[in-house]
Amino acid sequence: MNGGNGQYSYTRNSSIQRWGVEASKALIGEAVWEKLDTNFSTLFNIADLGCSVGPNTFIVVENIIESVKLKYPSPDPNSEDIEFQVFFNDLASNDFNTLHRSLPRDREYAASIVPGSFHGRLFPKSSLHFIHSSYTLHWLSKVPKELLDKNSPAWNKGRISYGSAPNEVVQAYSAQFAKDMGSFLNARAQELVHGGLMVLIIPCLPVDTSPSECPLIAVMDQLGDSLMDMARMGLISEAKVDSFNFPKYYPTQHELKTLIERNGYFSIDKTEPLAQSTTHARDLNFQIFISHTRAAWEGVIKMHFGSDIIDGLFDRFMKKVSKFSPLISRHSSKQIAEIFVLLKRKAS
Amino acid sequence: MNGGNGQYSYTRNSSIQRWGVEASKALIGEAVWEKLDTNFSTLFNIADLGCSVGPNTFIVVENIIESVKLKYPSPDPNSEDIEFQVFFNDLASNDFNTLHRSLPRDREYAASIVPGSFHGRLFPKSSLHFIHSSYTLHWLSKVPKELLDKNSPAWNKGRISYGSAPNEVVQAYSAQFAKDMGSFLNARAQELVHGGLMVLIIPCLPVDTSPSECPLIAVMDQLGDSLMDMARMGLISEAKVDSFNFPKYYPTQHELKTLIERNGYFSIDKTEPLAQSTTHARDLNFQIFISHTRAAWEGVIKMHFGSDIIDGLFDRFMKKVSKFSPLISRHSSKQIAEIFVLLKRKAS
Repeated sequence: MNGGNGQYSYTRNSSIQRWGVEASKALIGEAVWEKLDTNFSTLFNIADLGCSVGPNTFIVVENIIESVKLKYPSPDPNSEDIEFQVFFNDLASNDFNTLHRSLPRDREYAASIVPGSFHGRLFPKSSLHFIHSSYTLHWLSKVPKELLDKNSPAWNKGRISYGSAPNEVVQAYSAQFAKDMGSFLNARAQELVHGGLMVLIIPCLPVDTSPSECPLIAVMDQLGDSLMDMARMGLISEAKVDSFNFPKYYPTQHELKTLIERNGYFSIDKTEPLAQSTTHARDLNFQIFISHTRAAWEGVIKMHFGSDIIDGLFDRFMKKVSKFSPLISRHSSKQIAEIFVLLKRKAS
Repeated sequence: MNGGNGQYSYTRNSSIQRWGVEASKALIGEAVWEKLDTNFSTLFNIADLGCSVGPNTFIVVENIIESVKLKYPSPDPNSEDIEFQVFFNDLASNDFNTLHRSLPRDREYAASIVPGSFHGRLFPKSSLHFIHSSYTLHWLSKVPKELLDKNSPAWNKGRISYGSAPNEVVQAYSAQFAKDMGSFLNARAQELVHGGLMVLIIPCLPVDTSPSECPLIAVMDQLGDSLMDMARMGLISEAKVDSFNFPKYYPTQHELKTLIERNGYFSIDKTEPLAQSTTHARDLNFQIFISHTRAAWEGVIKMHFGSDIIDGLFDRFMKKVSKFSPLISRHSSKQIAEIFVLLKRKAS
């Protein structure tokens, strides 16, 4: 994600994710009230994994804290209040300076920063009571290596995603997602106390939709086509495009459920799509979509192609995507569905 | 402290502090063995306050962990090992990127970063079992305001420290140190569990020594004189020098003890000067002294005077201090004494 506060920063371009955060508010409150079932003395530890730079992460955290305080009110004025400790995690390359500067001054929790990949262990055993991670798990830990192998049927020549790719490419993406979910769930199973809750918001492919029909995936193909146009014009090399693939995969809800069940450490207490807000859909105009896309994708593109091509690329991309504009609407039944997943750590 | 890895970085100029860390190793081991007396399930929380960028902080932390493991060995192969969580704290301006990059890969602890001033609360109530802070508390939270007040007898005109200053200036420094120690101890008293330990290493003025006799303080006066020379030459304004004062104060051991006793939350289980190593004294040559001084002081000087004057200032300073060179020797009985303080949180 883009750091800082500039035009294409995540801070100023995360209202789509913000919508998900708002939409999950009531669900988190309900989850804490009905399902949280863990012992803690007076200290309640929360982690937000893939927190980026704020402000969404602060809204999530405050919501969790309010919910816990509602469930466990101080029995009498002499008893000790619950204390909250929040661990903000993201990759080491995240702009933690912006995160730290933006921390609410009147916060009711102690704040810690934990840089590192959530595909491995980050916290001590049984040290967390609530884990949250939204819009993060569809980012793969790496590009599946078959996509770069000229001798593999999954070689992804001339494409940067899997919307219009052969089935072998989709399978390679899906297999990497399965591995990543496995390592994520194994690590969290160690860190979450028994009875502790984990809320994931994962963008999923809707039922009965092929990747190429899904606007958000088709849009990645458009970016790939824009890059190929630039290669044909000699602005970048074709080999450079061939060696780039977006490390993003949108599983189906069924795929996700199967992976969690296969892992076995968590009970699935709820999976449901976040309700679409009509206000939100109305607000999501084309310009917002483009600037969000840029805030989220620019980083990985720059890393591979350098900074020089970015403006030209996004100009081309915008023109191409404008034809798709109606498809971007959240009203489309083929649009990515944000799935709210509530997991509870089983007693081992 | 200077971040990064450059010529005047703290990373490459912290062997004096490193010596203190090494010299306190056995004392920490002894403290844990004899005095640690607190309940923890399987999670042991450690904080290093004012950790800077490493590597000293990692050595300290590993030493504490080894000591705790020695005291509480796993009773049998089936029982759970103790897990360690370490909180690295420093001001938000610290170079946490360097710290994070330098974290030992084979570390046996979960690492968290907690930016913020240790003069206020940083952690939840009763959440830490061991607190360590070395070479930090002699840095004041701010310059006492009387030093800048033309109408105060403590106005510190033409000086940047208190070695050759009137008594009122020394008193103003001392009062600020007392306030800072008070807020530090109050916050830690909340955060440390009963029976938990706190180790402080604080550079102190030796017994029967006036500030002006102490080489390290006299040397600050030399830096002030170098700045005044530059003001006389018109390179900086005199008013700029008048408005700058080093926020550093070296208490006496007696002063320190009185402040801790007055605070009342901690029992003093040990205060003793770290043993001087002759190897170390031999190693501390003039060049090392100058580069350490620069690594530690450059930041605050730059903030006030800008970067341009730094090289010229330290050239002048080096020439002036070369006359003092014998005084810098750690063999001098008037030299700053590193005091090891072991505190235990009383049951309230």
